[in-house]
Amino acid sequence: MSALTADAKGVFVIAVTPFHPDGRIDMESCDRMVDFYLEAGATGLTVLGMMGEAPKLTVEESREVVARILARVGGRVPVVVGVSAPGFAQIDTLTRAVMELGAAGVMVAPPGSLRTDDQIVNYYTQVAELLGDVPFVLQDFPLVTGVQIAPKVIARIVNDLPTCVCLKHEDWPGLEKISALRAEGVLTRPLSILCGNGGLFLPEEMARGADGAMTGFAYPEMMADVVALYTKGEIDRMQDIFDAYLPLARFEQQPGLGLAIRKYTLAKRGIIAHDAQRRPGAPLTDATRAEVDRLIARQEKRLKELN
Amino acid sequence: MSALTADAKGVFVIAVTPFHPDGRIDMESCDRMVDFYLEAGATGLTVLGMMGEAPKLTVEESREVVARILARVGGRVPVVVGVSAPGFAQIDTLTRAVMELGAAGVMVAPPGSLRTDDQIVNYYTQVAELLGDVPFVLQDFPLVTGVQIAPKVIARIVNDLPTCVCLKHEDWPGLEKISALRAEGVLTRPLSILCGNGGLFLPEEMARGADGAMTGFAYPEMMADVVALYTKGEIDRMQDIFDAYLPLARFEQQPGLGLAIRKYTLAKRGIIAHDAQRRPGAPLTDATRAEVDRLIARQEKRLKELN
Amino acid sequence: MSALTADAKGVFVIAVTPFHPDGRIDMESCDRMVDFYLEAGATGLTVLGMMGEAPKLTVEESREVVARILARVGGRVPVVVGVSAPGFAQIDTLTRAVMELGAAGVMVAPPGSLRTDDQIVNYYTQVAELLGDVPFVLQDFPLVTGVQIAPKVIARIVNDLPTCVCLKHEDWPGLEKISALRAEGVLTRPLSILCGNGGLFLPEEMARGADGAMTGFAYPEMMADVVALYTKGEIDRMQDIFDAYLPLARFEQQPGLGLAIRKYTLAKRGIIAHDAQRRPGAPLTDATRAEVDRLIARQEKRLKELN
Amino acid sequence: MSALTADAKGVFVIAVTPFHPDGRIDMESCDRMVDFYLEAGATGLTVLGMMGEAPKLTVEESREVVARILARVGGRVPVVVGVSAPGFAQIDTLTRAVMELGAAGVMVAPPGSLRTDDQIVNYYTQVAELLGDVPFVLQDFPLVTGVQIAPKVIARIVNDLPTCVCLKHEDWPGLEKISALRAEGVLTRPLSILCGNGGLFLPEEMARGADGAMTGFAYPEMMADVVALYTKGEIDRMQDIFDAYLPLARFEQQPGLGLAIRKYTLAKRGIIAHDAQRRPGAPLTDATRAEVDRLIARQEKRLKELN
Repeated sequence: MSALTADAKGVFVIAVTPFHPDGRIDMESCDRMVDFYLEAGATGLTVLGMMGEAPKLTVEESREVVARILARVGGRVPVVVGVSAPGFAQIDTLTRAVMELGAAGVMVAPPGSLRTDDQIVNYYTQVAELLGDVPFVLQDFPLVTGVQIAPKVIARIVNDLPTCVCLKHEDWPGLEKISALRAEGVLTRPLSILCGNGGLFLPEEMARGADGAMTGFAYPEMMADVVALYTKGEIDRMQDIFDAYLPLARFEQQPGLGLAIRKYTLAKRGIIAHDAQRRPGAPLTDATRAEVDRLIARQEKRLKELN
Repeated sequence: MSALTADAKGVFVIAVTPFHPDGRIDMESCDRMVDFYLEAGATGLTVLGMMGEAPKLTVEESREVVARILARVGGRVPVVVGVSAPGFAQIDTLTRAVMELGAAGVMVAPPGSLRTDDQIVNYYTQVAELLGDVPFVLQDFPLVTGVQIAPKVIARIVNDLPTCVCLKHEDWPGLEKISALRAEGVLTRPLSILCGNGGLFLPEEMARGADGAMTGFAYPEMMADVVALYTKGEIDRMQDIFDAYLPLARFEQQPGLGLAIRKYTLAKRGIIAHDAQRRPGAPLTDATRAEVDRLIARQEKRLKELN
Repeated sequence: MSALTADAKGVFVIAVTPFHPDGRIDMESCDRMVDFYLEAGATGLTVLGMMGEAPKLTVEESREVVARILARVGGRVPVVVGVSAPGFAQIDTLTRAVMELGAAGVMVAPPGSLRTDDQIVNYYTQVAELLGDVPFVLQDFPLVTGVQIAPKVIARIVNDLPTCVCLKHEDWPGLEKISALRAEGVLTRPLSILCGNGGLFLPEEMARGADGAMTGFAYPEMMADVVALYTKGEIDRMQDIFDAYLPLARFEQQPGLGLAIRKYTLAKRGIIAHDAQRRPGAPLTDATRAEVDRLIARQEKRLKELN
Repeated sequence: MSALTADAKGVFVIAVTPFHPDGRIDMESCDRMVDFYLEAGATGLTVLGMMGEAPKLTVEESREVVARILARVGGRVPVVVGVSAPGFAQIDTLTRAVMELGAAGVMVAPPGSLRTDDQIVNYYTQVAELLGDVPFVLQDFPLVTGVQIAPKVIARIVNDLPTCVCLKHEDWPGLEKISALRAEGVLTRPLSILCGNGGLFLPEEMARGADGAMTGFAYPEMMADVVALYTKGEIDRMQDIFDAYLPLARFEQQPGLGLAIRKYTLAKRGIIAHDAQRRPGAPLTDATRAEVDRLIARQEKRLKELN
């Protein structure tokens, strides 16, 4: 498969990891999920992200999941693999394995201990050296990592390290950060900016200069539509579609609960067989399931009104 | 004015503190804001909250703002005053001052150093002893305070301390917490639960057993409508109204940026004269202002469609 | 009194705030404490530091304590006042008050929300503008503030802001930071570096280029001796004296417990009348008191051996 | 090898992981290190702790290091293996592997996301279920994990989970925690309490009821002597020995720097061949090395005076 480049755009869906109720990985659901994501308009996939329950997999299982997904994708779109880990040996092992299997690049979040600008730049400089010619995505997700990366620090990393081709933008608030990076003269090399946060600010992010989304909202159709309509200049239509999905998107974006809601929704849509999570991880209550059901029903009604 | 009780319900609007561009408190805007909030359906006000830029006021100024607001309210609704401070002497001084001026109660958030269940219970036990017969609101806002308070810990506090009459519920996710508190046998005394987070989950919170909202979204009409329609059982209508405001509510709920957006909106609506914040505090960029303008225009259009 | 300058050196003792058992400020003990500190070799005092229980005082009380201490000092040594606060109005009010009373300068710690290099520089730039010509101490205490300030960021602040004349150095580990700041060409203006952390690394800090200590260990004699012996080049003697105090210094440097141990020791030494702390604040157990007693007895014995 | 029990006492040395300068594991140094620790009086070893650079090893390397150390120990003392990981699959895999190789038990630190008492109890309940009959050590190290565990929460865990046989006590301050756990009626089952923090409070910890140390200070002789002398009731002699090592112990206990100092000291003593750390990890400066050299020279002199 060809490598990830700074031209990446559209929707890179963050894939969940489907499990059987007994905790085994559900490989059939993996296949069905890949098919669904591609039909829904995904221009790429990201696997073993934080939302993919990556830390709950053994190294062997991680390799198997990536192999299965890459086989099913069959080179149709680039696949990025999350390899964040406390130590370089672990990052290195997983990166070698998945690149050999055909991944297009890897994604690395900063360890929570980093604070000063130079600490962050030094970390990514060492990462880039470790990865060699493997292109990587810088994951900027302060709410979870606790690491705040200023636009100028991102610019230093991107301008200095040619293999840093993409930013998974997940700061909150984060719109000014996109504008700062897209300002004249800040970046001296091209950079793909793909946005996270469940797509909750995607219309504004596109207008600020993002290239698309990299997130896992259970209706990737929304992200695909927003990006497409924005590109065509149909701004009001874009926002109408977005608004129809927003009540559910907001609900899914609850920290710690979001993955369970996402899996419940994907299972309800018939895409994965079970909404099971590996332990530790709490199941949804009946009340929450009912709330999701109600939001989906309303969403479908509203989307019909718009068509 | 009568004291705050566990019967509190409806919408307690968190008031902003209006400033002149040179940093002086804008007392005329204070008056206009009070009138507006009450007309919009507020059943109470909360002043000197975190969103009221309380820490930027001197003690003397805090007293003056509270005095002005209480005078304008004139006893029509209860006014709660935020008195959180690192030391008890400061809490005590401000509490005495505002209760004398006619406040209905005070609100206290936990200091960020608290971690274990007993530390939290001990803190509020000492607070209650300090406050004497002054009723207080427990502010549960982990995203900002860093303190996570389990439902059973809230129950211990409420059941043991008769002056803890209200919970400002601002956990995220927080719906299960309301259900846990409303479950049979958990609370042995009545408790008003008023929800924060910009109203972003108000429909679900009402259904889980909340009594209303205590937050500062620049369109308190939304919260008043949601609470009223929920009470009347018009659930679909409630959700339609909520959905119309959601794109802006989501936008206002950006941490660190929310207050600037809120003040800009209130100024645009003619309620306060300026959107000025005291330093430290960053002004909105033109791009953000344009985004807010666009969201407000769409919101007005959508609300018209619904009427 | 003359203003604090970058020539500050020796031992600036962080003063405790003595209370009566009922919580009132014990002004007689304040006087006795001042006399003791000056006799013990203090070249300056710092009041209302984090260890001074500053947040537990009302604004009025803060002013009274500072006034009393300044009166007793009578201009013999410079007095720095801690004015850290969440908002500029509070910083401004207290600074004006204490400078008028005769303080030599103020000390400002960064608010815990600061993360990136520029955020830190911007904060101190705004602080310096607010303070006008009042000299200030930058308090660098990451264990408590959560803010990590790189040496180059300190250099930017010092080089740009002529009123930043002193660094209260309290990073841990922090020796390399002193070396980095003292390296050729880093600082373009003079800077006094006074070290905290209970004096636990004072011999090494002096050798790295510090100018002395600013901390509150209950035996300021230790710090005065270490600084004096280092200055005279009696390195082994310096270390012998330091080592004799180290078991107690280590014991006092327990976070959250240190102030109680310090007050207990000062009271035992007859310097303050009571070891009372204001609430919230836990008293020492009998076991801890016995441990301190034992350490003091051994320390006295060891010091005798050395003389 | 026999399993770890609540009778564990003495000194469990936290082993470093020796590397060659090029980053490969140095297996010869592993052997020499094991021999040295046992000669120095270790009654147990703990490998793959946070200080063992565990996160920098691949799963395969972790297994190899444990196998080598277990082979060298040859059953003479119990060996505990750190298996903390974000997900249960990883904990499970490593636990199975090392128990099969002959480990005596495993050690588990709480993930940083835990806050409330019940969250902590639930986590360890799930861990115990996962581990089956494998005995485990609860690692209580708030400075690094960010998780504060109240004594009563530890008691709930120990009393409910028979396989929790040992507490690695590393709270700071932590003396009252030992007293609280040793108080009449708190623990209904036996528990070994072994203390960390580089041994910096070992004399007081023994007196409070600890059973020994589990930490990695580069002079394990100190810990062995302190425990032995305390047991024999030679309290003054114990404290004299302790005090002689304290200047270096204090220096080694600098966060983030401690492991480098420890490895430098072990290499200087000829126990491991190199002081190399795997990346990421900063080497010591010449200034720091000189400080360590000076402290060691003084320590040797002082120890001679005592003999």
